[in-house]
Amino acid sequence: MKLYTCTGAPSPERVTAYLRHKGIAIDTVEVDLRAGAHFSDDFRRLNPYCTVPVLQLEDGSCLWMTGAIRMYLEALYPEIPLLGTDDRQRAEVAMWQNWVEFNGLYAVMNAYRNAAPGLADRALPGAHKTVQISALAERECQRYQCFLDDLNQRLDGAEYVAGDDFSVADIDARVSIDFATRAIKIQPAAEHTRLQRWYKRLGQQRAFS
Amino acid sequence: MKLYTCTGAPSPERVTAYLRHKGIAIDTVEVDLRAGAHFSDDFRRLNPYCTVPVLQLEDGSCLWMTGAIRMYLEALYPEIPLLGTDDRQRAEVAMWQNWVEFNGLYAVMNAYRNAAPGLADRALPGAHKTVQISALAERECQRYQCFLDDLNQRLDGAEYVAGDDFSVADIDARVSIDFATRAIKIQPAAEHTRLQRWYKRLGQQRAFS
Repeated sequence: MKLYTCTGAPSPERVTAYLRHKGIAIDTVEVDLRAGAHFSDDFRRLNPYCTVPVLQLEDGSCLWMTGAIRMYLEALYPEIPLLGTDDRQRAEVAMWQNWVEFNGLYAVMNAYRNAAPGLADRALPGAHKTVQISALAERECQRYQCFLDDLNQRLDGAEYVAGDDFSVADIDARVSIDFATRAIKIQPAAEHTRLQRWYKRLGQQRAFS
Repeated sequence: MKLYTCTGAPSPERVTAYLRHKGIAIDTVEVDLRAGAHFSDDFRRLNPYCTVPVLQLEDGSCLWMTGAIRMYLEALYPEIPLLGTDDRQRAEVAMWQNWVEFNGLYAVMNAYRNAAPGLADRALPGAHKTVQISALAERECQRYQCFLDDLNQRLDGAEYVAGDDFSVADIDARVSIDFATRAIKIQPAAEHTRLQRWYKRLGQQRAFS
């Protein structure tokens, strides 16, 4: 297997943090997004939609969505489960992961990609050009602030995002927060006390240490 | 179990089409979105994020994301599988379902919600108010057109969206297309011949008959 990734980009990090946590070593290939390597003919043969991460399997076929990649890896490497341990828990993790992705990760992504000078016609990931909308960048910054408030609220009584156990929902929330700190200069506030404690706890997890 | 739903809204339909296909009967409660019933205190106790569908389990706890609801139902009712039948297939279905959701469903949702007169401060689903951006409505219409082109391309050689078998990826694509036809008046074009054939094939599936 081979993982096509890009250090520093959020969705690849959602997979590499997952791999670190489980202690899985996979050959990686660095894709130079800044140089547009994901739009090359070679890369399009792996993923016609021109996004990373991509997991190439032994038979040459590829998985190119973060959630699908982690689902496949979880089946291959069930130890240290990060997608839940029974049917109810698996659904709970899927629910919170999806909530984080929609409200947190996409908010930061839209806020960043609709304003970054280097992404003038790339306001969305993928093969198609998309113009930036500055009003959207602003609106998504506000939306991300709501996400931080909601996440802080959620962590009232819950040790981790999906409940008692560390999971991919925590990985995606932490990656979103670190990306927002770098890319749109918004950090959790001092008043987000539960979120701050959770963030510190994550630093002790192998995914982020 | 009890399903809180709203007839005609796309995400509830992603679950009800799934249930129809598998022949599962669940008690349903109609939530009047037009009257704002999803913002009531009673509904917030089920789902603080004020979205449908919500699946309430026997113990009173709730799942409130479409993907999580179907994942849980699939574990309870494995017959007529719609999420794949082995680890590789499950990942493939998850990948294409996520692709449809991000590029198709969200495009229609944004195009509609950023322009509909009745949703002036509800440009995104959820508990928080979000202002409409008309430039975004336009951009998302174009994005949806790209999705139709890409879906037509994808169906070159693939019987269904995720490959040989009918799955939730087809359900979500069909629901997106029907929603777009009604809500933003964009339909697949005559040139989308493979998509048109696939759409007709779906009419023979129990989910849509």
